[in-house]
Amino acid sequence: MKTVSTAKAFGGVQGVYSHRSEACDCEMTFAVFVPPQTANGPLPVLWYLSGLTCTHANVMDKGEYRRLAAELGLVIVCPDTSPRGEAIPDEPDNWQFGKGAGFYLDAKQAPFATNYRMYTYITQELPALIAAEFPVDMERQGIFGHSMGGHGALTIALKHADRFRSCSAFAPIVNPMTSFWSTPAFEKYLGPDQSAWRQYDACALIEDGARFPELFADQGSADSFLKEGLKPWELEAACSKAGIPLTLRMQDGYDHSYNFISTFMDDHLRWHAQRLG
Amino acid sequence: MKTVSTAKAFGGVQGVYSHRSEACDCEMTFAVFVPPQTANGPLPVLWYLSGLTCTHANVMDKGEYRRLAAELGLVIVCPDTSPRGEAIPDEPDNWQFGKGAGFYLDAKQAPFATNYRMYTYITQELPALIAAEFPVDMERQGIFGHSMGGHGALTIALKHADRFRSCSAFAPIVNPMTSFWSTPAFEKYLGPDQSAWRQYDACALIEDGARFPELFADQGSADSFLKEGLKPWELEAACSKAGIPLTLRMQDGYDHSYNFISTFMDDHLRWHAQRLG
Repeated sequence: MKTVSTAKAFGGVQGVYSHRSEACDCEMTFAVFVPPQTANGPLPVLWYLSGLTCTHANVMDKGEYRRLAAELGLVIVCPDTSPRGEAIPDEPDNWQFGKGAGFYLDAKQAPFATNYRMYTYITQELPALIAAEFPVDMERQGIFGHSMGGHGALTIALKHADRFRSCSAFAPIVNPMTSFWSTPAFEKYLGPDQSAWRQYDACALIEDGARFPELFADQGSADSFLKEGLKPWELEAACSKAGIPLTLRMQDGYDHSYNFISTFMDDHLRWHAQRLG
Repeated sequence: MKTVSTAKAFGGVQGVYSHRSEACDCEMTFAVFVPPQTANGPLPVLWYLSGLTCTHANVMDKGEYRRLAAELGLVIVCPDTSPRGEAIPDEPDNWQFGKGAGFYLDAKQAPFATNYRMYTYITQELPALIAAEFPVDMERQGIFGHSMGGHGALTIALKHADRFRSCSAFAPIVNPMTSFWSTPAFEKYLGPDQSAWRQYDACALIEDGARFPELFADQGSADSFLKEGLKPWELEAACSKAGIPLTLRMQDGYDHSYNFISTFMDDHLRWHAQRLG
């Protein structure tokens, strides 16, 4: 692991690091905030997965998580959203596919299957690195994210309910199998057989029996992707049918941007801190 | 005035606007945050002046001022740092001069004197526009800024002590006449006669009799510009000699970045709010 940069912030350290990823077969960059309470022993760790077009940097710059994470004693890990580099296959003019749009899945189709393995990266490779390099208690992990990253947080939590004690999302893509911005990507990454897509779709996972103790999501009412891309009522219906407690808050007048995320960041951090002890 | 964008944030509105500036003879962009308390009548307004290389957007993205400004009921105005546009004379490879480096002065030398009139822009043209277009009480104004913007805040407050009730700074350039990164710029903007520079130098202004009721500044001890560019002890000496109460806090381990600014943003907002009523 290489240290790209570190800076003191709110008494803790905001760092950016990179490493050679075996899962993605390329150099990967991520951000970690370590709060000041490191003398108290290993700290709970909260994963933030970002949305389409983002790198590790967007939430680090605009998410406003450091003040309260420093107070609550949470380590915040912010991975990138896809493999990176000139050798990585991509569709440069398509923001919904390729670089910046890994959808937290393991691709099965050529030429994407070699590098687009964000599911393995986020669930295996990066956790092992974080556990080895940072003062974290891997028995106390939570996960959240925004949009495509909300999809990532929900699907990964549903498949690892034993690992994560808490899960929340900002404006998540809850049903990417049917959303305009993810269906073409799923087909290119996973192939045309939609039964293989279900493991990467929160609503389908719940329908197929996956469970999580409770979920929390915020959604802006002025989000231009609400009706065709996000459709939180589909998560509401799936959770209701499955008996999963879901706190879904419609936030009047908020859009899809970091203005929305930063406004409700404190609420999410407190939600996780309460469950991470 | 044109609205570039608006988004709801922390119950208020973060907007970006542009207008044709007469002072700078070009289109200028600025950001304004209006907190939710607009029904209570005109609100106090706090000016934030940014540092070298910045536009209006850096502090808007990374400054983390909205949460507490929304609570305290402060309008936050974030101007650009120089004239902009293809027609504006510039030294593209020099980050300490030209675009992004207006130094909040009115240039006197060709070819810069036509556009580089940030002092007139910030003290006359933009205040008139803000007063006309936003729910502000211009009897309750404060000013702060970072680095070159700290220089701007200090010099403008010292010259308009009747206008501003409060002034603070993050890592300000307190003596630009002698700092490595501003001396060449002052010479190009103002000419070789250093007596004309003194009106744009906080320490020189104080030496020449300018006063402000009290000043507040934070400075990171790990700031790589501390010893050659910032030299806060020169402000300390000038204030001490002049009898101006100065609260100067050295912040252990902090650098020159927005990690430093955002960490202490709350303290500065409270400082201003207490004085703006």
